[in-house]
Amino acid sequence: MHGDPCTCRKDTVDTLDTRLTRQLDLRCPIVSAPMAFAAGGALAAAVTRAGGLGLIGGGYGDAAWLEQQFALAEGERVGVGFITWSLAKQPGLLDTVLRHRPRAVMLSFGDPRPFGDAIRAAGAALFCQCQDMTHVRQALEAGAIAIVAQGTEAGGHGALRGTLSFVPEVADHLAAHAPDTLLLAAGGIADGRGLAAALMLGADGVLMGTRFWATHEALVKPTHHGAILAADGDATLRTRTPDIVRQLPWPPGFTARIRRNAFTQRWHGREDALQAALDVETPRYRDAWEAGDIEQAAVWFGEAAGLVHAIEPAAEVVRRTVNEAFERLRTAPS
Amino acid sequence: MHGDPCTCRKDTVDTLDTRLTRQLDLRCPIVSAPMAFAAGGALAAAVTRAGGLGLIGGGYGDAAWLEQQFALAEGERVGVGFITWSLAKQPGLLDTVLRHRPRAVMLSFGDPRPFGDAIRAAGAALFCQCQDMTHVRQALEAGAIAIVAQGTEAGGHGALRGTLSFVPEVADHLAAHAPDTLLLAAGGIADGRGLAAALMLGADGVLMGTRFWATHEALVKPTHHGAILAADGDATLRTRTPDIVRQLPWPPGFTARIRRNAFTQRWHGREDALQAALDVETPRYRDAWEAGDIEQAAVWFGEAAGLVHAIEPAAEVVRRTVNEAFERLRTAPS
Repeated sequence: MHGDPCTCRKDTVDTLDTRLTRQLDLRCPIVSAPMAFAAGGALAAAVTRAGGLGLIGGGYGDAAWLEQQFALAEGERVGVGFITWSLAKQPGLLDTVLRHRPRAVMLSFGDPRPFGDAIRAAGAALFCQCQDMTHVRQALEAGAIAIVAQGTEAGGHGALRGTLSFVPEVADHLAAHAPDTLLLAAGGIADGRGLAAALMLGADGVLMGTRFWATHEALVKPTHHGAILAADGDATLRTRTPDIVRQLPWPPGFTARIRRNAFTQRWHGREDALQAALDVETPRYRDAWEAGDIEQAAVWFGEAAGLVHAIEPAAEVVRRTVNEAFERLRTAPS
Repeated sequence: MHGDPCTCRKDTVDTLDTRLTRQLDLRCPIVSAPMAFAAGGALAAAVTRAGGLGLIGGGYGDAAWLEQQFALAEGERVGVGFITWSLAKQPGLLDTVLRHRPRAVMLSFGDPRPFGDAIRAAGAALFCQCQDMTHVRQALEAGAIAIVAQGTEAGGHGALRGTLSFVPEVADHLAAHAPDTLLLAAGGIADGRGLAAALMLGADGVLMGTRFWATHEALVKPTHHGAILAADGDATLRTRTPDIVRQLPWPPGFTARIRRNAFTQRWHGREDALQAALDVETPRYRDAWEAGDIEQAAVWFGEAAGLVHAIEPAAEVVRRTVNEAFERLRTAPS
């Protein structure tokens, strides 16, 4: 259809239907990642208002902060995400959050099975973010209604499988074992090309982190936003160093994708030395973080940085992504 | 168009037009990777005959073996690929190969600029496989007519960028700086879903390795083919260990994606110890390789292993990939 003179629908599309949109009553199959610290109620509400589904970043679990973010969501039907191994240390937090009637609860990085019943009983949709096939099998046992297949390109925590081959492999597994379970692709997706590609791979939608991190609504320091605008997709690495210096007990197998900087240059590959220097390095890192120092503390974005060229309103990201995906699909070679 | 009753074109498609097919006079935008040792003349010829472009794996550069493989290609218009840093040590090999009038020469892993003029002068299309944005800029200086953007999912040698975000970033770079240069996606692509996704990301076609490694024509031992059929996509890792034990001077930044096995279990993360034990380990490894031992020598496939369920003729892979891509594109959500 390339060259088709009828472009009447261009710039007017704001819906793109998939199983995800029909099942969750969305206008487009775009979910914003529950990025710890960065994804607050304002971002989540903006994404939901634009037709997608916004998730508040429950992170390591600060009840007061979560209450505040649900208030900032102003009653929009948002969801929330947790770091599962951290939630397991304070399971009461889940009840606190479920009282807000989240549209969805996403669990990542740990065994979701202990939480599935409570989430379903509260009427929330259980999303499980998975990094390998073992996680997928656990997620199905937990009763997930959606698997988020997260590739290594993703910013922040993740693991090693690449999005492009992981998503269709999960799709095949779901087709064989749980055909009603939805599938979202995550990791490296920042525009309509990525959304269209994800749909071709068999996903019902996408979860985007880095792209929503670079929005007005994200709780991100201006210096950090400056860093992503200056970066291409080669600018990041996967490393344990920010977890070591923050003294967070991340389970083996998960690493953080962050911008390469003076901190990673100094400590990546010298993790034992960092561990031995925490008395000095932990407070130094915290100070650098508070000061917005992009060289001495982590800056949390993924390989999709190379596709991000402006800090924009989240609604604009949703709108453009849908339109671009629609155009790509409409003008595909045949 | 989902549910469209007109399925008359199903199972009859064997062409899919893109800039790549038009420029290289192919019937479908599928290139087989020049896998060292595995991609001989029979595989390359089968892929070309099926409408794609087959590449013989020039690997580390064995002139007699290359002559034999061109003979086995029986005059089909195939191409050839080299490991660039190895070719640089025996540049005369390029002239030997160019006398066979290859349709294309693909250079990977090293600076292609010294070879661009000779390749163009011989009437061959220069493909440059790139793993990061620095490589892309070098490839354009070398006069590449096609960039192969290879993601970390790929089997064999590669680097760290994921295919899904790397391909559109390269597409943007080409649009801005070299709009006539073609773009192929590589890494994690093994079926029509991957081809359709690559087209959505802005590629003009795909290069597939693992999927063609698992064909009748590939020069792969039966035990190795057995290993891929038993593997899912989680079964591999990136490691320097096979290069260390084979005493191959790979430049920093490149690693090999191979199947996890007893050899990688023993040596990955203990590279210095392996280096110190080469007197024993190198001959042991060679013997294991010759014997087809899948635990004590490397088995070379990528994350797309999870999408490979049969060893098939290469032509069947081409045919099914094209048909599946066509069906995905035709029934896309809208």
